[in-house]
Amino acid sequence: MKAALLIIGDEILNGTTLDTNSQYLARQLEGLNIKVVERNTISDKKEAIIKGLDHCLANADLVVTTGGLGPTKDDITKKTIAEYFGVELVMNHDVLAQVESFFAKKNRPILEVNRLQALVPENCMVLQNKMGTAPGMLIEHNGKILVSMPGVPHEMQYITENGLLPYLEILNNGQEIIHHHLHTIGVGESRIAQQLEAIEDSMPAHIGLAYLPSPGMVKLRLTGVSEGENNTKSQIAGLANSIKQTLGTIVFGEGNTSISQVIGEQLLKTGKTLSTAESCSSGYLAQLITQTPGSSQYYEGSIVAYSYRLKKELLGVKHDTLTEHGAVSEETIIEMVEGGRKKLGTDYAIATSGIAGPGGGMPNKPVGTVWIAVASQNQTITKKWQFGSDRARNTHLTAIMGLEMLRRLLLNLPQF
Amino acid sequence: MKAALLIIGDEILNGTTLDTNSQYLARQLEGLNIKVVERNTISDKKEAIIKGLDHCLANADLVVTTGGLGPTKDDITKKTIAEYFGVELVMNHDVLAQVESFFAKKNRPILEVNRLQALVPENCMVLQNKMGTAPGMLIEHNGKILVSMPGVPHEMQYITENGLLPYLEILNNGQEIIHHHLHTIGVGESRIAQQLEAIEDSMPAHIGLAYLPSPGMVKLRLTGVSEGENNTKSQIAGLANSIKQTLGTIVFGEGNTSISQVIGEQLLKTGKTLSTAESCSSGYLAQLITQTPGSSQYYEGSIVAYSYRLKKELLGVKHDTLTEHGAVSEETIIEMVEGGRKKLGTDYAIATSGIAGPGGGMPNKPVGTVWIAVASQNQTITKKWQFGSDRARNTHLTAIMGLEMLRRLLLNLPQF
Repeated sequence: MKAALLIIGDEILNGTTLDTNSQYLARQLEGLNIKVVERNTISDKKEAIIKGLDHCLANADLVVTTGGLGPTKDDITKKTIAEYFGVELVMNHDVLAQVESFFAKKNRPILEVNRLQALVPENCMVLQNKMGTAPGMLIEHNGKILVSMPGVPHEMQYITENGLLPYLEILNNGQEIIHHHLHTIGVGESRIAQQLEAIEDSMPAHIGLAYLPSPGMVKLRLTGVSEGENNTKSQIAGLANSIKQTLGTIVFGEGNTSISQVIGEQLLKTGKTLSTAESCSSGYLAQLITQTPGSSQYYEGSIVAYSYRLKKELLGVKHDTLTEHGAVSEETIIEMVEGGRKKLGTDYAIATSGIAGPGGGMPNKPVGTVWIAVASQNQTITKKWQFGSDRARNTHLTAIMGLEMLRRLLLNLPQF
Repeated sequence: MKAALLIIGDEILNGTTLDTNSQYLARQLEGLNIKVVERNTISDKKEAIIKGLDHCLANADLVVTTGGLGPTKDDITKKTIAEYFGVELVMNHDVLAQVESFFAKKNRPILEVNRLQALVPENCMVLQNKMGTAPGMLIEHNGKILVSMPGVPHEMQYITENGLLPYLEILNNGQEIIHHHLHTIGVGESRIAQQLEAIEDSMPAHIGLAYLPSPGMVKLRLTGVSEGENNTKSQIAGLANSIKQTLGTIVFGEGNTSISQVIGEQLLKTGKTLSTAESCSSGYLAQLITQTPGSSQYYEGSIVAYSYRLKKELLGVKHDTLTEHGAVSEETIIEMVEGGRKKLGTDYAIATSGIAGPGGGMPNKPVGTVWIAVASQNQTITKKWQFGSDRARNTHLTAIMGLEMLRRLLLNLPQF
């Protein structure tokens, strides 16, 4: 089954708002072996919506639209859809009850414009939206399926999980797309491709390998279609093993995981605890660590010591160390990580200190200079990294390289 | 001038990777009065690229493609583009020099597959890429412009800022799209629309108002086209004032700003300092604060006290308070914010403690229960928030509501 996504909204098209719905929908549909063959983002104007519906319904079996279903004057998707199919809008009493209950729970008065959200095209099946007031609408027409959902992400996700996916599950036809992900860190795409050249050249035609770079990492994705008795699954498993053996240390995880989850699993396994002492990463490292469910079992907390004063008072960094070497130095990072580990009373610690940018660069310490240290009771490992000039990217790289240095310490692997 | 974006990549289409390039490009083009009229995301297959080029070149004057320009076997955009225009690929020596220099700087050996990245369609103008190895390529054809760039975000951004935008600036034709943004927090879209109904009904036809909700906030965007002597600019300014007067306290900022920037400006103006004591927001509040350039002038740091032990040892929360009331309580949040403010030695502090989810909910404290407190030397303000069940959303709402409570404290505005 082929799907097309029609993302409706000037605010998406002109860049005011980032579209995260498409990624979410594509992943959900992929899990049901429904392949997204195109994704079109259009203006919330009637003509654009009609053109978009024409085009997508011609090219796909399932068309999912998001956006244009709010209670304000610039929302016209519903009316356009009703016109498109030549049907009337009718009041749906389940939706009306949901809208009234939504406002009652929040102790807010319901407005006429919200009641009108309970009008739906008479040929649609309503997909309830308990997260808001605009219902999802599903229309079957000439063997095709059109689904229209609000653009607000958590409302669209609710409707997808509770209404759309259950409906689609009955249409699945026995085919299965198999993905296998390998996660690598610290080496660039072309170097990895060179190491894997022999493996790639000998891969069967029905299996593909994609390189998915992100800052500091390259995710490798093996893909194949499994049907009935064929052995695609075991072929992919075999290829994954060959790749792991070839690449060695730089492979930090497999499947649906993250560097944060990998170190979490190791800490849980060994019953050890972790804390962090951050400067330039400003709490982002703590964020990454705590995104893994259950992290409170091994992660105690972080000291974000942005100023000299707090580096001294909270982490015990010596005044002379700061004045002689500066905050961004090996001497300071050692005192940060060892002081932090003792003050926070954990088995392991990660510390970061650097110049994230855009300002703050100096002749001998340009923007992107970052010291990272990891410490256990017996060992302190430091490394000076030279990242680029993009602040957000530097913050992210700092945190993930800190986690990777910890992984190598935990698993006794060669450090960078 | 109308633009179409053609986003190439299976990994985008199937949801593996989030497309942030489109938003970036749309914003940059909007600044030059170039309107993105459509955005299409397609597979990196030759047929899809050809269809996409046909469609976009028919509907727009400027077509920008991203993706499909890496050194690995699944990158085919360049070859397809050369075929599309019926030209050869030729070696570009500036690009070759850049590729060689890129590898030399990183102390990495250059591979043949990277040298091949210096081949470009013979009818193209090269847009240098100093962040990587794949050059941007600009082709003028039949009065249209096609620009092809790598999909890696920071490389695409470099090429856009240093190559594409300077080229486009000469084509600007004197028209100006005027946007005016107003930022509101804490009230839902339909309530705001109700309050603005009279203003909206009386707005001239050539000016539009869009509602752009995000978690906890609604951004309002007034848009009009200014040409020559017309007074769209002053009309929009007048409407913005009416809206601000009507909505009152909930408007926290105007133009290109953020809640973090607004509190930063106020702290700078008064020469005051800020620290944070976080539990459930896990460093995200520190992150938001430090994203504002210059924040080190007023922000000293954060204690992320994830465990009971660190709440006691680092913030001075009393053992009995925790055992009697739990971490998520008014009693604890008061001790966290007052203890944090004193320990970190700042004029103001924000503290957060709650249940972000997905686990951790209890009958009397369901997931989404979050206590937030702000404190000055003389005043401590607390509030219990009831957010939803989505962890990332709860983390974000916690941080922005903490910043808003601080803003109201700093400006002596009525609290929530």
